[in-house]
Amino acid sequence: MKARIGIFGYGNLGRGVESAIRQNDDMELVAVFTRRNPKDVSISTSTAAVCSAQEMENWKDKIDVMILCGGSATDLPEQTPECAKFFHVVDSFDTHARIPEHFANVDAAAKEHGHIGIISVGWDPGMFSLNRLYASAILPEGKDYTFWGKGVSQGHSDAIRRIAGVKDAKQYTIPVEDALAAVRAGKNPTLTVREKHTRECFVVLEEGADAARIEQEIKAMPNYFAEYDTTVHFISEEELRRDHSGIPHGGIVLRSGVTGSDKEHKHMVEYSLKLESNAEFTASVLLAYARAAYRLSAEGQQGCKTVFDIAPAYLSPMGGEALRASML
Amino acid sequence: MKARIGIFGYGNLGRGVESAIRQNDDMELVAVFTRRNPKDVSISTSTAAVCSAQEMENWKDKIDVMILCGGSATDLPEQTPECAKFFHVVDSFDTHARIPEHFANVDAAAKEHGHIGIISVGWDPGMFSLNRLYASAILPEGKDYTFWGKGVSQGHSDAIRRIAGVKDAKQYTIPVEDALAAVRAGKNPTLTVREKHTRECFVVLEEGADAARIEQEIKAMPNYFAEYDTTVHFISEEELRRDHSGIPHGGIVLRSGVTGSDKEHKHMVEYSLKLESNAEFTASVLLAYARAAYRLSAEGQQGCKTVFDIAPAYLSPMGGEALRASML
Repeated sequence: MKARIGIFGYGNLGRGVESAIRQNDDMELVAVFTRRNPKDVSISTSTAAVCSAQEMENWKDKIDVMILCGGSATDLPEQTPECAKFFHVVDSFDTHARIPEHFANVDAAAKEHGHIGIISVGWDPGMFSLNRLYASAILPEGKDYTFWGKGVSQGHSDAIRRIAGVKDAKQYTIPVEDALAAVRAGKNPTLTVREKHTRECFVVLEEGADAARIEQEIKAMPNYFAEYDTTVHFISEEELRRDHSGIPHGGIVLRSGVTGSDKEHKHMVEYSLKLESNAEFTASVLLAYARAAYRLSAEGQQGCKTVFDIAPAYLSPMGGEALRASML
Repeated sequence: MKARIGIFGYGNLGRGVESAIRQNDDMELVAVFTRRNPKDVSISTSTAAVCSAQEMENWKDKIDVMILCGGSATDLPEQTPECAKFFHVVDSFDTHARIPEHFANVDAAAKEHGHIGIISVGWDPGMFSLNRLYASAILPEGKDYTFWGKGVSQGHSDAIRRIAGVKDAKQYTIPVEDALAAVRAGKNPTLTVREKHTRECFVVLEEGADAARIEQEIKAMPNYFAEYDTTVHFISEEELRRDHSGIPHGGIVLRSGVTGSDKEHKHMVEYSLKLESNAEFTASVLLAYARAAYRLSAEGQQGCKTVFDIAPAYLSPMGGEALRASML
């Protein structure tokens, strides 16, 4: 029996989940929910429905797991607990400081209605978090490093677009090679924000806009750019479309630690991702955890969980015996 | 309350577990069990006992988790099920073809006596297995690669030592850079055994031994060397001691996969380990899983498990809330 999946929100992430479902035989897409007029949303799965978000309750017996594909700022804090009344839910909530509050809200709603919620699923939080946990549990004396990129930061790109005179923009976060080399060499450097990442911006100006003033404004923007070495390139709209239309991302998690009677042996654990589509990879992680939610619910589990609480075997369509034979 | 740990077998791995316990405040070493005369075994934990393996049953109420530190060929198939009668057990069984049989034996013994057994814990099998599972669950359409090294292979070093005229030897397994580069570039190459790894041997001869004949014999040894490009260096005993006394190892697990409506986006997941002491890192993984065994038993679980069956949070001494706040 296939797990019946719903998608809430049909942007890059929602479309990513839809195409990931086609790569997993044990899942089927039942319906996409949107806050737009369903007539204006065209999906590529002919067997699935497009519904208004308000109709959600009518689908409660037809969908097992709802995958939330909205944003962390305002969508998920509302939508994930709301959906947990009707379905098992999985989201990619990534506002770090608000995780305890979000966890509590999803936990309460899920438990009240006998559902499972898995929050903060993706690659960071998600796969990177898992690697931080595994490596620190194995090497309790050590130091963690996370580098992001090279990749497009949506939030930083948006921040540039809000500047007057900017027509469009794309921002890349890039790890500093020297910093990464020092970490890999086991030097355990203490790195400032500026020493870890640089930021490279590709900006399309409105006609007649003042490039010098805009470059100045970008580089001085606190929290986003002021703390970094930032490079700004002005390019044409056509160049932006041609060379910067993708949403690649990735990064590296490292832990350097010591063992031995005199802590004389060094170890380096490194996990890295190079992703041509940030949204589609995140969607693929969400779907693997949707499978876990579906299976855990069959065992009678409920409440809110994170990637830390899910045994890896639940993510794979293979059974225990096959997993042990092929992957152990 | 600390988890009370026993160590069965006091070689490199057992000593590694002993020093790892000193890095983990929630564990204490209670006793080391040996098949040698306990009087001949001197350990570095003054508060722990050294006992004969035959006394094991007397310790059943004084030890929570026994960590098995013997070899996979003959020790663990006997010892792990035997110990599971008295304690929760964790081992690093790595004879791939015999895992189903070992799993069944440990499962039966553990269930009969209400214990938990976690087998095949370490880095491969172990952390590498986990990474294969996670990456393949996320990217169902893709290709896996595992490279080992640069590191010392105990089995291959032993094979050289058995040749007449060889006084001592050390063998390094080395990944082929070009093969690794092709995988990282997303080319999904089909690689033969020879194309993936080379083997480098450092050999000390007995006086008067025939170097040419020994080099020939090494290079022609089926399964161990014949399938590889093998280099043999003859060195003095002193050089071997000075330059090759460590047991470094490591390796890389990669998965290259595709997503998207036309499978147009490539992704690369890479996990790598660089270990100055193979035994101590393996010991550290064993200890993290001993913590998991202890906690799972407190929840009433029993039977045989592998790394696939253990939710990551059980490995960390931190609670769920602290983990979410610091690592998610």
